[in-house]
Amino acid sequence: MKIDVLTLFPEMFTGVFGSSILGKAAAKGIVELNAINFRTYSKSKHGTVDDTPYGGGGGMVLKPEPIFDAVEDLAPASTSTSPRIILMCPQGEPFTQHKAEELAQEEHLIFICGHYEGYDERIREHLVTDEISIGDYVLTGGEIPAMAAVDSIVRLLPGVLGNANSAVTDSFSTGLLEYPHYTRPVEYRGMKVPDILLSGHHANVEKWRREQSLLRTLERRPELLEQADLTTKEREWLKNQRN
Amino acid sequence: MKIDVLTLFPEMFTGVFGSSILGKAAAKGIVELNAINFRTYSKSKHGTVDDTPYGGGGGMVLKPEPIFDAVEDLAPASTSTSPRIILMCPQGEPFTQHKAEELAQEEHLIFICGHYEGYDERIREHLVTDEISIGDYVLTGGEIPAMAAVDSIVRLLPGVLGNANSAVTDSFSTGLLEYPHYTRPVEYRGMKVPDILLSGHHANVEKWRREQSLLRTLERRPELLEQADLTTKEREWLKNQRN
Repeated sequence: MKIDVLTLFPEMFTGVFGSSILGKAAAKGIVELNAINFRTYSKSKHGTVDDTPYGGGGGMVLKPEPIFDAVEDLAPASTSTSPRIILMCPQGEPFTQHKAEELAQEEHLIFICGHYEGYDERIREHLVTDEISIGDYVLTGGEIPAMAAVDSIVRLLPGVLGNANSAVTDSFSTGLLEYPHYTRPVEYRGMKVPDILLSGHHANVEKWRREQSLLRTLERRPELLEQADLTTKEREWLKNQRN
Repeated sequence: MKIDVLTLFPEMFTGVFGSSILGKAAAKGIVELNAINFRTYSKSKHGTVDDTPYGGGGGMVLKPEPIFDAVEDLAPASTSTSPRIILMCPQGEPFTQHKAEELAQEEHLIFICGHYEGYDERIREHLVTDEISIGDYVLTGGEIPAMAAVDSIVRLLPGVLGNANSAVTDSFSTGLLEYPHYTRPVEYRGMKVPDILLSGHHANVEKWRREQSLLRTLERRPELLEQADLTTKEREWLKNQRN
């Protein structure tokens, strides 16, 4: 997979693209990660990429030309594959694990990150294929959201995660919050590991973990239970916990 | 404000903490940003910070000692202010702009980022004050989520944003998605700026923008309308759009 990120702050990506899973995936050749300053596509003498909004008001708006030109340079019409062109913005569809899985099937992704500015609407309407928001909080730019999306996508690519790493996160795919984890020491400052985890009784441990997972989801994110994959017995059990 | 981030990958933060708004806020002395490797708090010869889970299963679990020791070192009980100690994790409360505003009032924040591993439950129960999730998607670690939270918090601190930058994001605070922006050129590859934005009629422009904002929210995120600050007339108008 090839991932190009258009940004005015490519230096923000150095640490994230070079470390951990992303750095390793790139080193293995599974993904090519590029952070590209789209200011280099500006045709103006001063490298201008934004301008004041028509109709007045504060803030600046990213001009269409440099971004159209950058995308066309990165994905020439002559090539057979057409990339997904993803705008990171608060108006986008809320990012989900399902969306990460969908994008992980693609060969080429181009992320567009604005910073402070709004985007000229013509970028949105005539260039991008997807608009993504990572959550309802205000950030300075699309760079950190693009990092989040890239991380969630790349870790799904075959060969990126070892078995040891994938195990922990698999539990998320049940649609429930994770059960509590404990490791050594068995007692730390008077706080003890629950006896059941020391019992060696595998079936009881599994039952306890599943119940803890259900209870935690009920307590913290009850709305997730509606979509979760539960047995009839589990739904009954949860109903009793509610009462 | 002082922000300490406990992580096994401090190098991931270099680009983000050094650039843009965060870099400037740190340079101005408004915020002190530290990424600290909590492996240095391990008492084992090999710097071990994780171990296998009690009760079996895959994945590794972060041990309590290095993280308790790191937090106590960063926030000695002798000091008068007690920091918020924030665990970044998928089981946390969904991060919101309201939460960012709340945390922006604090003097000292300590973020704890796990990576691949789960956390020993005793960290969660007896050390942290807040658990935060930035969204329902699986990431490799808490580092990128911590960057998102830090960015959203620091940009709210007095003196960080100039007026020009704050203007664009203020519109988010209405609880609606933003209206479309346009800048020069007035026509680009046959795509034109809407006439109304060229009319110079300020009141009509404002009306159009508000309607566009309402329509976009209705189309993309209708659930936001329930909480949004709308007039009775606007609610009526929206009802007609729905039909």
